[in-house]
Amino acid sequence: MQAHTLPVLGPAPPIEAAAWINADAPVALERLRGRVVLLHAFQMLCPGCVLHGLPQTQRVGQLAHDDLVVLGLHSVFEHHDAMTPAALAAFAHEFRLRFPIAIDAHRSGDPVPATMRAYALQGTPTTLLVDRAGRLRLRHFGALDDLALGMALGGLLAESA
Amino acid sequence: MQAHTLPVLGPAPPIEAAAWINADAPVALERLRGRVVLLHAFQMLCPGCVLHGLPQTQRVGQLAHDDLVVLGLHSVFEHHDAMTPAALAAFAHEFRLRFPIAIDAHRSGDPVPATMRAYALQGTPTTLLVDRAGRLRLRHFGALDDLALGMALGGLLAESA
Amino acid sequence: MQAHTLPVLGPAPPIEAAAWINADAPVALERLRGRVVLLHAFQMLCPGCVLHGLPQTQRVGQLAHDDLVVLGLHSVFEHHDAMTPAALAAFAHEFRLRFPIAIDAHRSGDPVPATMRAYALQGTPTTLLVDRAGRLRLRHFGALDDLALGMALGGLLAESA
Amino acid sequence: MQAHTLPVLGPAPPIEAAAWINADAPVALERLRGRVVLLHAFQMLCPGCVLHGLPQTQRVGQLAHDDLVVLGLHSVFEHHDAMTPAALAAFAHEFRLRFPIAIDAHRSGDPVPATMRAYALQGTPTTLLVDRAGRLRLRHFGALDDLALGMALGGLLAESA
Repeated sequence: MQAHTLPVLGPAPPIEAAAWINADAPVALERLRGRVVLLHAFQMLCPGCVLHGLPQTQRVGQLAHDDLVVLGLHSVFEHHDAMTPAALAAFAHEFRLRFPIAIDAHRSGDPVPATMRAYALQGTPTTLLVDRAGRLRLRHFGALDDLALGMALGGLLAESA
Repeated sequence: MQAHTLPVLGPAPPIEAAAWINADAPVALERLRGRVVLLHAFQMLCPGCVLHGLPQTQRVGQLAHDDLVVLGLHSVFEHHDAMTPAALAAFAHEFRLRFPIAIDAHRSGDPVPATMRAYALQGTPTTLLVDRAGRLRLRHFGALDDLALGMALGGLLAESA
Repeated sequence: MQAHTLPVLGPAPPIEAAAWINADAPVALERLRGRVVLLHAFQMLCPGCVLHGLPQTQRVGQLAHDDLVVLGLHSVFEHHDAMTPAALAAFAHEFRLRFPIAIDAHRSGDPVPATMRAYALQGTPTTLLVDRAGRLRLRHFGALDDLALGMALGGLLAESA
Repeated sequence: MQAHTLPVLGPAPPIEAAAWINADAPVALERLRGRVVLLHAFQMLCPGCVLHGLPQTQRVGQLAHDDLVVLGLHSVFEHHDAMTPAALAAFAHEFRLRFPIAIDAHRSGDPVPATMRAYALQGTPTTLLVDRAGRLRLRHFGALDDLALGMALGGLLAESA
């Protein structure tokens, strides 16, 4: 990943959630204009997510403030029977995930959930960054080191709304 | 943990399994006399198991040989709806667990499974070591560092059958 | 460390070097206007430097580009007989430090070197960040995690010259 | 490394030390019969020693007891001007090495020190294990993981004197 200004990949599609965990009400990206959003797409049985992506997302969450929002996106595209909403709730409880998590919605007949399709995700984990203007600025599939992620976040936070 | 000779805690109770994963047939401890057995009791949604205990068990598995057997024991005592046999199978597949895993059997009305009761486990992860004579020599609840575990295994392997 | 805009701590004092390693000529901070500078103050026999600070500085060095410069500052204030320029050269060679390293100059009678005094360093390791305008923006004594350092760097890189 | 019984490589040669650190008097291997000895050969400016071998040796030192002795061997074969006895003393102090360290003796005209030659070391770090009978049982050049080292130590400790 380049440390320079991140390119604009287009408007960030809305999150299509069947339900939310750790949130009293659905979180709409449109309502987060003016803030930088880290949206971490994961599956609870994906080793790269559990061992790397989610702990990193939690570390970012501990640095979060008014201008930086951390969200999870549970995009199940395999083992649907094992990664149910109830199982995710148990997982989030046990792993002490505190940030709001959207359960990516499935449309009938499609094993790939709707938000995953809208963001053209290749798999999980994927780190998505949305800037203050609601534009997608990073879509990184796989592990991203803390230094590179920090530089990307610092750059987006320095942009004016 | 002391590096000296491990005390004898008594005969290792049999594993009461509802089913096995990664095994063509049930694995009976009685059939493993003459070999040292590492039995790792875990739950698939237990962070200490996923982040520490299971990776360590896999490392031991890579050193396993004729005289050293590695087994898993899925002892579910909470979140029973999320940690089903099907979910465990998906988990074991994704995390590439190669060793045989017993699904600890539940008796009607008891949320704590049978083998967990027989071994008086406090929780997960718990590392159990059985010597060549079928005696329980270590029951360690929580994280155990590689050096201490290695010393314990090395000591048991050096004992004659 | 706050993720928001870093405060201005004043103009970055010049580096007073007795000699340089990994540089054909002395590196003057004044000549680096328009670029962000990470200046890592260390001692070759300081565990926090060797185990954490220098590996981190090397990681930043691998991300360095035209706008981001990484420099070392060997500020010896103890064990002067052991941390000689020749010993530092051997250390830098063995640990594969590639960035330019200033050997902080000593004034007669003062065990604390000159640049260390000018920057009011409390000890080593200390991470110093200088912005494009030559102003000191961060002076962090001790370990700094990669995420926080990345965010600080990303913010400074996003500032116009 | 095999987890089975370690082969006998021959009698452990005596340590030829110019001086000792962290010891009131020279430590003779012959005086340690009946005990298992971990002898860690290192150089203070060797990255593999500083980042891996010495921290591991310290971890073993924390498990040491009457039957297990941990010793260091500073075998300098390069950068002789930088790795002097005074520099080693500063290094051992800063890195909090508590175990006795022999400074490997140099014979005139030979850049390779005497104990290093006697043990036919390929370089540093090298982990040497001596059994209760004073026989060399392991000579491992490079990194050795904790699990394998623990198994080797556990096996030697289980042998009778």
